[in-house]
Amino acid sequence: MAGSPRRTAGRRLQLPLLCLLLQGATAILFAVFVRYNHETDAALWHWHNHSNADNEFYFRYPSFQDVHTMIFVGFGFLMVFLQRYGFSSVGFTFLSAAFALQWSTLVQGFFHSFHRGHIHAQNLPETLFPHPQKRRGDTFLPTGEELSMINADFCAGAVLISFGAILGKTGPAQLLLMALLEVVLFGLNEFVLLSLLRVKDAGGSMTIHAFGAYFGLVLSRVLYRPQLEKSKHRQGSVYHSDLFAMIGTIFLWIFWPSFNSAPTTLGDGQHRSALNTYYSLTASTLSTFALSALVGRDGRLDMVHIQNAALAGGVVVGTSAEMMLTPFGALVAGFLAGTVSTLGYKFFTPTLESKLKVQDTCGVHNLHGMPGVLGALLGVLVAGLATHEAYGDGLESVFPLLAKGQRSATSQAMHQLFGLFVTLIFASVGGSLGGLLLRLPFLDAPPDSQCYEDQVYWEVPREHEDLAQGPLRAEELETRA
Amino acid sequence: MAGSPRRTAGRRLQLPLLCLLLQGATAILFAVFVRYNHETDAALWHWHNHSNADNEFYFRYPSFQDVHTMIFVGFGFLMVFLQRYGFSSVGFTFLSAAFALQWSTLVQGFFHSFHRGHIHAQNLPETLFPHPQKRRGDTFLPTGEELSMINADFCAGAVLISFGAILGKTGPAQLLLMALLEVVLFGLNEFVLLSLLRVKDAGGSMTIHAFGAYFGLVLSRVLYRPQLEKSKHRQGSVYHSDLFAMIGTIFLWIFWPSFNSAPTTLGDGQHRSALNTYYSLTASTLSTFALSALVGRDGRLDMVHIQNAALAGGVVVGTSAEMMLTPFGALVAGFLAGTVSTLGYKFFTPTLESKLKVQDTCGVHNLHGMPGVLGALLGVLVAGLATHEAYGDGLESVFPLLAKGQRSATSQAMHQLFGLFVTLIFASVGGSLGGLLLRLPFLDAPPDSQCYEDQVYWEVPREHEDLAQGPLRAEELETRA
Amino acid sequence: MAGSPRRTAGRRLQLPLLCLLLQGATAILFAVFVRYNHETDAALWHWHNHSNADNEFYFRYPSFQDVHTMIFVGFGFLMVFLQRYGFSSVGFTFLSAAFALQWSTLVQGFFHSFHRGHIHAQNLPETLFPHPQKRRGDTFLPTGEELSMINADFCAGAVLISFGAILGKTGPAQLLLMALLEVVLFGLNEFVLLSLLRVKDAGGSMTIHAFGAYFGLVLSRVLYRPQLEKSKHRQGSVYHSDLFAMIGTIFLWIFWPSFNSAPTTLGDGQHRSALNTYYSLTASTLSTFALSALVGRDGRLDMVHIQNAALAGGVVVGTSAEMMLTPFGALVAGFLAGTVSTLGYKFFTPTLESKLKVQDTCGVHNLHGMPGVLGALLGVLVAGLATHEAYGDGLESVFPLLAKGQRSATSQAMHQLFGLFVTLIFASVGGSLGGLLLRLPFLDAPPDSQCYEDQVYWEVPREHEDLAQGPLRAEELETRA
Repeated sequence: MAGSPRRTAGRRLQLPLLCLLLQGATAILFAVFVRYNHETDAALWHWHNHSNADNEFYFRYPSFQDVHTMIFVGFGFLMVFLQRYGFSSVGFTFLSAAFALQWSTLVQGFFHSFHRGHIHAQNLPETLFPHPQKRRGDTFLPTGEELSMINADFCAGAVLISFGAILGKTGPAQLLLMALLEVVLFGLNEFVLLSLLRVKDAGGSMTIHAFGAYFGLVLSRVLYRPQLEKSKHRQGSVYHSDLFAMIGTIFLWIFWPSFNSAPTTLGDGQHRSALNTYYSLTASTLSTFALSALVGRDGRLDMVHIQNAALAGGVVVGTSAEMMLTPFGALVAGFLAGTVSTLGYKFFTPTLESKLKVQDTCGVHNLHGMPGVLGALLGVLVAGLATHEAYGDGLESVFPLLAKGQRSATSQAMHQLFGLFVTLIFASVGGSLGGLLLRLPFLDAPPDSQCYEDQVYWEVPREHEDLAQGPLRAEELETRA
Repeated sequence: MAGSPRRTAGRRLQLPLLCLLLQGATAILFAVFVRYNHETDAALWHWHNHSNADNEFYFRYPSFQDVHTMIFVGFGFLMVFLQRYGFSSVGFTFLSAAFALQWSTLVQGFFHSFHRGHIHAQNLPETLFPHPQKRRGDTFLPTGEELSMINADFCAGAVLISFGAILGKTGPAQLLLMALLEVVLFGLNEFVLLSLLRVKDAGGSMTIHAFGAYFGLVLSRVLYRPQLEKSKHRQGSVYHSDLFAMIGTIFLWIFWPSFNSAPTTLGDGQHRSALNTYYSLTASTLSTFALSALVGRDGRLDMVHIQNAALAGGVVVGTSAEMMLTPFGALVAGFLAGTVSTLGYKFFTPTLESKLKVQDTCGVHNLHGMPGVLGALLGVLVAGLATHEAYGDGLESVFPLLAKGQRSATSQAMHQLFGLFVTLIFASVGGSLGGLLLRLPFLDAPPDSQCYEDQVYWEVPREHEDLAQGPLRAEELETRA
Repeated sequence: MAGSPRRTAGRRLQLPLLCLLLQGATAILFAVFVRYNHETDAALWHWHNHSNADNEFYFRYPSFQDVHTMIFVGFGFLMVFLQRYGFSSVGFTFLSAAFALQWSTLVQGFFHSFHRGHIHAQNLPETLFPHPQKRRGDTFLPTGEELSMINADFCAGAVLISFGAILGKTGPAQLLLMALLEVVLFGLNEFVLLSLLRVKDAGGSMTIHAFGAYFGLVLSRVLYRPQLEKSKHRQGSVYHSDLFAMIGTIFLWIFWPSFNSAPTTLGDGQHRSALNTYYSLTASTLSTFALSALVGRDGRLDMVHIQNAALAGGVVVGTSAEMMLTPFGALVAGFLAGTVSTLGYKFFTPTLESKLKVQDTCGVHNLHGMPGVLGALLGVLVAGLATHEAYGDGLESVFPLLAKGQRSATSQAMHQLFGLFVTLIFASVGGSLGGLLLRLPFLDAPPDSQCYEDQVYWEVPREHEDLAQGPLRAEELETRA
């Protein structure tokens, strides 16, 4: 079989051994540390005489399932656009996200236990009932509740965003190592923002999107491949791979309202977050189509823009969707995000590679990087405008420190801004460390001429192998004949 | 590049300018008119001391997400069946539905505010608690509640049904103009039926399916292209495009119970609507397979029938699913709908084009038109049979005017019938107006020889372009060689 | 058209007549026996003065929709991996599952009425309120509640598992007859386990997975085709058919937590089941990737393993997910299941065909058979370890007989083990009967040379027909030219 790289026996064992090692380690840590909480433990739940309808399951599970769909179907298929990297795109998404779910359960559990001295929910009867203020960043359990499942999926989302920047250029063992590192830094950054700085970021414009994007971009910079044009002919899509990618796009688009509302306060908080995200996404869709046609050859639309930039409206309200953004504000935010993102794909991505040596396969800088930063700044603005009048008694839920008089709106805004700064630092340092880790010479990376190619890691059905040297073109067949 | 149409600079700008204009207009209208309601406004929600669990979010959001999936995944992929119109099918669905969501939020808001003199929910403390009678057609808010999101998706559904009739023969700017007009007429028709005639139509057999279908069919008649056979070779499917279309079919099928139950009364109403739809769909599936094999060459099944007619069971109980239809009634209705729809595809669609000059690309007459009318008539029948005995105290929820003694069952049935008549009028007049609008000579429509072809509006990956003159056939390759 | 089999007029009518006959029969039985229950009947629901929020719809419907997605999208697309059997895979899944939903509504209704002497919910006002103990196996209604919809989908799942074993080797009329028989035996087996033996099996490791797998495997043995290698060239996948199959895999994987938790007790039971399944699946994913690379040529991953074995984690906790399995236990169980399943695909499936003459198209023995038996044994273990201390007052919900002192934990474990034994007996006898039924000579089965081929039963678009004799290979084109 032409084009298949010879790999040494040692490299052949990297993926299996790493999977087994990581799974063994997390299993031991689960045995030692992870327990059901009062929502999932039979004895604890029935200890107090409350209604089954109060179980947080009924308030969060539908949103969780939507988020879960986004991570595995949405991200997985969005990256299938490459003509012969579909198995890897959806398969490595599957593998690295599955590991990230386990690992972030532990990491987030530790971070959120640590700051309250390892208190276990079991000893806190006063938390047995759903409480309006209960939210992301206030959990203190190693596991066991809906929120831990949602948060683990969120963390996996950040890992997959970084994956998008290096798609096609790394092997599965490298991706698992990246996840190992990134999950820890994600947890640390999130802890600093949500628990120490008391910053609001329900849908993760900062903690998920900006963090994941800049982590991946810096990592991609460290892994820069000057000879990557050897694989250039595989970097495009084919007709049906673009349609598979649209499956990812549409599932991300429709469930993004659930993503931004999943961890907010119950009641009006979840409802408002979903509504704002819904409108923001419609606006980013319109602006993406407008800009794509405007900058396209003969006014033609570009599938890359539609697949990606139309989603920027979800990213940009990640911080502010639970605030009193207003539907009008959501439209404006989404419109700007779609515009910036589309223009980024057209004009900025080429520069990023030629000038800054950052090879960003999926353009995560355009979909998650810039819209994430914009979203953080929008959060600064909307938090700075918060008033008792606008939020009424709901201020307690959205900005508890403002409600208690411990912070002014301006101070909250400054904390939000500082949160963005912290995130960018964590992402950059983390991405650099990650790049150094992934450059370890014994790790099994594809050669420059075999990037974006499934055959390096997968058994590929026959008809596709024949095409390994380039796309099947009628001319070629003529020539051969 | 052979086969690509030269378009003037003016035409190139049509889509971008129209997107920007429409987005600008809706944004301004949102700024002036759209406010959070008591379910989504932080201050209003916390004004009264009620439980977060009472927020309608928890009763409607899972259904909303299913409906949202149907609109964007279901309709989008159902139309991907054409061999080289996949980008346009899913892309223009995405664009026109995104615009329709914004625009119908405004239109429906205005219609439902108008008849109560612009009352805002904020002034109605008595509506702060979920109320059994609260439902589609009784909302009076420009935005802000689950129902407005569901209703906007319903309206987008009607637009996409009309799109199905003209699929492949119109450009995106034309589609946006069609949506602009159709959303207004949809809102007006719905207002007349639900608010003035007090007709029941939860799942929209009349307001969505019949309206959307006949609007699109009349519009397609006005846009009749006698030379369309120039694009005949692109009007079929290929193997994998049919599989993509089945993604659309299956997602529509599984979530249709949510579609018909999303806006009904809470409690037994939603539960009964979902159950009836579930059974109706199983029956239309069985009858579609039976009829497709019966009329097929050598007893072979036809994918077009399976992809479409199997869904007719959802359309036909759109009016009656929330009534006491009985599970048996649901089976009979679904069976009839699948039969009529399959026979329509086989025998009626060809006639429709040859005799009535209606070119119906997706056969919406068979899936939405006839089953929609059947569904309306079934609603007449089931409403006419309503008794106090059968509904008990639940009569108040389903037929409030009957419960209050203001109408007899026969009178309700007559109103239902009149509602169908009104719908057909609105659809026909609207479709005619729409056709005239879309025939404006400066609008960018594809030439007869370039219908059903993505390349007119999209950058298409290389390997597909080579095939632009016809499907790649082994014979052809032989010949060329 | 070369390769298309001539079929007699009689065979042509088999599918239509069988569909019409079965639909007619179930419709009549629905008319006689099926009524709305207190959750769906307008009069019954409003008879007592309870809140609409209490309707079980709000506690089960989101889970139901996830299960529904798994059955039709998950199973349907998982089987699309064959290169030219995609229409049949997704189409016959659609048909046989739609019939199974109707038929199992009747069968399960009868079984669960029988043991309480045809009591109808309408006469039981004390059940008008959701009750913690209400669950799968305690329903006694012919229809009308969420549970009946979920249970009907579960039964359809078992039918589809059996379908997987004979995929490509049977016609649609044969599949309907198989469903006719299997649904009855499924209902009987479930009744014996859940209602007589009082065995726990919420996610159906025994009743769904082991039953469906061994039913299908024995049936496939009876239908053994010694000349099947005539269709060998069609038994593999192509690149895009593998991607379609991954749609099925991923939707099964993400919604499996809903599958195992859908019918459990409300509150902690549902929450715990979902959580355990979530972690088990992550572990089976990691072990599948590890083992697939370990046993693969040059360390390459095999799509068949990823598509299937990664799901074994859902199967293996089907019995124990609602018990106090612990998150650690879930990880270990999932890990083992993924390992056993992957090794089964690699080493056991070939033996199964060569030695035992069982041709298992989809490898259901590896995904449902062995993991199902493992899951049953895990249930024996976890039930045997149940203590009052671990479950507290929750013991009443999970193991009511233990709570009441009518059984010891060891006795419950023995009952669980006996349940597995009963299931294997029912499946084997049922599969044998099914095989004899499907071998009736007048039934329309594909010839050995036309297995795994859509053209036998479907109109297939032109470009695919040309390829009917084998996959299109560049060499072939060269030769022809």
